[in-house]
Formats: sequence, structure tokens, C-alpha cells
Amino acid sequence: MTDQIPSPVKERLLHLMRVLEQRKGVSVTSAEVEALTGWASHTIRKDISWLGGDFGSSNGYHGEALVPAIKAALGLERRRRFCVVGLGRLGSAFLNFPAADLGEFELAAGFDSNVNRVEILKSPAPLYPAYKMAEVIGRFAIETALLCVPAAAAQAAAEKLAAAGIKGILNYAPVALSLPPELAVRNVFVLDELRSLAVKMSNGVYI
Amino acid sequence: MTDQIPSPVKERLLHLMRVLEQRKGVSVTSAEVEALTGWASHTIRKDISWLGGDFGSSNGYHGEALVPAIKAALGLERRRRFCVVGLGRLGSAFLNFPAADLGEFELAAGFDSNVNRVEILKSPAPLYPAYKMAEVIGRFAIETALLCVPAAAAQAAAEKLAAAGIKGILNYAPVALSLPPELAVRNVFVLDELRSLAVKMSNGVYI
Repeated sequence: MTDQIPSPVKERLLHLMRVLEQRKGVSVTSAEVEALTGWASHTIRKDISWLGGDFGSSNGYHGEALVPAIKAALGLERRRRFCVVGLGRLGSAFLNFPAADLGEFELAAGFDSNVNRVEILKSPAPLYPAYKMAEVIGRFAIETALLCVPAAAAQAAAEKLAAAGIKGILNYAPVALSLPPELAVRNVFVLDELRSLAVKMSNGVYI
Repeated sequence: MTDQIPSPVKERLLHLMRVLEQRKGVSVTSAEVEALTGWASHTIRKDISWLGGDFGSSNGYHGEALVPAIKAALGLERRRRFCVVGLGRLGSAFLNFPAADLGEFELAAGFDSNVNRVEILKSPAPLYPAYKMAEVIGRFAIETALLCVPAAAAQAAAEKLAAAGIKGILNYAPVALSLPPELAVRNVFVLDELRSLAVKMSNGVYI
């Protein structure tokens, strides 16, 4: 089903899933989802209709039923390991995210080209010098990387990750990467986020 | 025009703008944009048609003409000031982003409830204790905030920002905020980004 659901619907379903998870068993009405997210209630109902099944909204939506349905529809049922590449301020911030905020994702390793930094930093996951990337990524079957190196080092680091067998990169380095098309990349640029927010503000539309 | 362009088109135009800016005057073909972003060339052409005008792709797209057109269409022409709220590892990482990577946005202030942290941290922008938020945000006409406080403190901090007259929040705290609808919020959750990336990976579709 994953390959049929349009991309914006997937994004909204992901966010709805998060809202439901935070309610911890308490149901949420489409009006409340509208207040929390800004999406019109008919949009929410339409999104949910992609899941098949009856998740009727007369008494509100229940996380117990909806969260597993969304996870199944989006292919998010199994645990996945990720690593952080580049342990400056941003990268080291990600090392210390509470596991509870990472859901089905598990931080398995951190890498930095600076060996001193690797030895000094405190981290719940093991840290390695960058030259061990291929070995460690293979050994722990790490699928995803958070790329937090400086912009000038990002393309080279991404190519090393690709060669090491990584399947997806969250790119926090403010530069577009050129990589084989089978590797999924998601850019997370502060400037783009600020601009998206500015567009939303000028719209007066809350979507 | 901003209010007519669909949201996913806006997101792609923003990203295209970034690609063009990085080329610094060198034109880019739709095939290259496809390789860099994964968007089909007919999607890119269609997105650009929302801008009106003739930005023909036979010799590639030129940043010189397209970047100002995208900025105008999306309401991104003027400078805007933002602040960082919560100066832990994540927040302090944002303090030190190179200004060149922030485009038309200017870091005007940082806030933390810990006065020691405010005094010790090095930052190119002035830092203030949290109780000065309303005063400083008003004085410098700061429009946007990067919310980087711990999840448990996020709702209270967001309400203070709303009361201080902030117009938009980039929410890095992994919790949904309840705020007046006239305040634009954009959630930037690592878990959501990891999930979006995982969905992309399972798709084998690069959009």
C-alpha cells in the first residue's frame, strides 16, 4: 500500500500518528487534530481512508487501532538502526536524544574524523573514528545516517556512507548531495525550514 | 500568488531555489535537478509554471532569473529576524550556524532560563535570560523562534513566545504544541524525519 499513498498524505499520517502516540490511549477528535495541526477535518478523514478499515471519527480516533494501521501502511513496523556522522554541536546533540523520543529507531553508533572528540565525548552509543565507518555499519546492519558534518565535508562523507552500504541519509549539512538514486536522502536544512515557516506565516494558512 | 500555490509545490520551489543558489550563476538543466532531488523533470517544469513568466528549460534554468521569481512568489524578499530559545547542545549548535547558510534570516538573539549558560556561551548574537523574552523580541522586531528547549518545557516556552508577539515557531522539541491558530508552527522532529526517510527507503521512490 505504501507505494500508492501520495507523499503529502504520508507526511500527515506520520504526524497524526505522533499526536495519537502522545495521547497514550486517549482518543482524539478530528476537531482537536485540526486545532493541533491546522489540517481541515475533512483532510484528516480523507487521509485516514487511505488505510482502509473503519476508523470512524464519531467518537474520535483511537491510537490503539490507528497507530498500528498507520505503521503498517507506511512500512514502519520493524526496528531500524541509525548512526550520527559528525559529532560537532549538532551531531552530539543527537547523540543525547532520549531513546523514548526515537520510537522504533535505535542509535547504534557515532562517527567523527577527529579521534580526540570520539574519545572525549560522552554518549549512550559507541563512538568510532570515521575510518571505521564501513566496518561498523556492516557489523551492526545500520541503515540510516544523520549527516551532521560541515557543508564542505558533506559530499565526501555521504559517498563514504554510500560505499559502506547505508540506505538512507538525513542530511543536516546545508548542501545538496549528489548520490546514486537508490540511496534515499532527506534534506533537513534550517534555512529551508525557516523559509517554509515564513511562507506559512505570510499565507495566514496553517497547513 | 503565494496563497494559490499548493504546499508541496512551494516546498519543491524552495528546494529548487536552494539548488540554483548553490550553482552561483551557472544554469542547471531539469535532468540535473532530477538527479539532485529525485523530482521528475515534468514535475519541475509544472512547478515553475506557477511562477508565470518564461523560464524556458531548453538551455537549463538560470538562478539569476528564477531565484528572484521564486522569492517574490513565496513572499521571501525581505530580511527577517529570528531567535533561538533553549541553549542546550541543539540550540547552541544553531547559534553558530554561518550567516551565509541562513540566507535572508538574521539571528538576533538567544534565550535560556539558565542565566549561567547565557553568560558563559560564546555567540555571534546577544544572549539573554528567558525572562527578557518579551522585551527583546519586541525591541528587535523578532518574528520567528527556533524552539530548542526540552519537551517538558516546550508548551510553556511557546506560550511565552506567543505572548511576546512571535509570529512563527520552528519546533525542535519533540512534542505537539497547542497554540492560537494565527501563530504558524512547523515541527522539526528527528523521529518524524527518520520515519519520512524510512518511508522513502521502503518505497524505492525518490520524492
